[in-house]
Amino acid sequence: MNSTYFTRRTIRKYSDRDIEAGLLEKILTAGSRTSTTGNMQVYSIIVTRDNMMKERLAPAHFNQPMVTAAPVVLTFCADFNRFNRWCRQREAEPGYDNFLSFMTAAIDALLVAQTVCNAAEEEGLGICYLGTATYNADKIIEVLEMPTGVVPVATVTVGWPAEIPDQVDRLPLEAVVHMERYRDYTPDMIDDIYRAKEARQDNLGFVAENSKKTLAQVFTDVRYKKADNEFFSGKYLEVLRSQGFMA
Amino acid sequence: MNSTYFTRRTIRKYSDRDIEAGLLEKILTAGSRTSTTGNMQVYSIIVTRDNMMKERLAPAHFNQPMVTAAPVVLTFCADFNRFNRWCRQREAEPGYDNFLSFMTAAIDALLVAQTVCNAAEEEGLGICYLGTATYNADKIIEVLEMPTGVVPVATVTVGWPAEIPDQVDRLPLEAVVHMERYRDYTPDMIDDIYRAKEARQDNLGFVAENSKKTLAQVFTDVRYKKADNEFFSGKYLEVLRSQGFMA
Repeated sequence: MNSTYFTRRTIRKYSDRDIEAGLLEKILTAGSRTSTTGNMQVYSIIVTRDNMMKERLAPAHFNQPMVTAAPVVLTFCADFNRFNRWCRQREAEPGYDNFLSFMTAAIDALLVAQTVCNAAEEEGLGICYLGTATYNADKIIEVLEMPTGVVPVATVTVGWPAEIPDQVDRLPLEAVVHMERYRDYTPDMIDDIYRAKEARQDNLGFVAENSKKTLAQVFTDVRYKKADNEFFSGKYLEVLRSQGFMA
Repeated sequence: MNSTYFTRRTIRKYSDRDIEAGLLEKILTAGSRTSTTGNMQVYSIIVTRDNMMKERLAPAHFNQPMVTAAPVVLTFCADFNRFNRWCRQREAEPGYDNFLSFMTAAIDALLVAQTVCNAAEEEGLGICYLGTATYNADKIIEVLEMPTGVVPVATVTVGWPAEIPDQVDRLPLEAVVHMERYRDYTPDMIDDIYRAKEARQDNLGFVAENSKKTLAQVFTDVRYKKADNEFFSGKYLEVLRSQGFMA
């Protein structure tokens, strides 16, 4: 197995070097061989290379600098529009205006996205996922002109690394893998699982900087707040409705 | 880049050979290095190896034979339970009982799932995704004993291939990739994109077998019917509610 899986890190700083069209086509082709439900391929990938388009996309991604600095920005979308058009053109009445169909299409898009990322990293490229694709889906839809049936689910910036950051921590494998049955976590298990993460210098720094008592509070009170999650939940559900997935 | 991305096919028939624990750990470890939102790792993987557990899972997957025939069945779950427990144990009040948090966790789980599949295939293993994970999430939750905060999003069977099926078709890459903006499809484009798929002998066979006029009708009237999609939409939304993601 190639070692990239184990040595990879998210890359947020890119060199000025462009990604050649042939290489981009290769990693997207790798992605296109990924399993999709019933081989329907109900996803689309929008490639942003143009600087003006990056500038227009940036606010939807809270102006994270990767959007304008990366040579390529990829927006992966759940997409039943193409399939629905085909059905209607072939005397078939599509029944894909519902939540399950959104999930089907979102799953297609996300699995393809990850193969594209694995393939890109194997070629030496660096990638960064932007969670903002679900937060501000409405703005992304507007900028990229997505019709009914199309909803962004992930945005990835891609470029040649201009940094080799430290590899971030992961929980022990046993913390995320369950054998045969989900075994719920006891307080002792939670302490064990999170001990190394909480002891890291960088994480201790975040707790201090934000004047919090625990690292968990940095997540709940600073990074991923209840009020924000609820606000963006409402927005994303409204997008599913307006894009035709909640009939 | 390793060639597996381009030569892969879904494998539904497996040899009797087991998957050694070390190899399984290796592909799961590869998966665990995948990007997750804020490095929260809000997913879990449930490994089914026990024959009795496979028998119990099978009905939830409409008794597709891969479930009992594969040496390993992996159920990938959106999981905020572990993270919520950690927060509560650290004087932090989690605000993750909403739809956006479900999407965040589902995205984590799906990206990890696809890295596990890519890594498995690179090692010569064969995989098959079962769409039924979202259809019958309620039954899977019951059999695998998932608590509140945990929802299955994908099931993958893994084993050593006992077949080399023909590689299935894919739409031309240009059909799923848009440059700069989503360019909606004209009727001529739809004809072009689907022409090769519709002309395939296997697909012509499905149309004839089902006494349909077009391949699209095989999808809308036989494989992915509106009534079924609506039924499973309701069920999955109810699962999100009962597992604590629609507060």
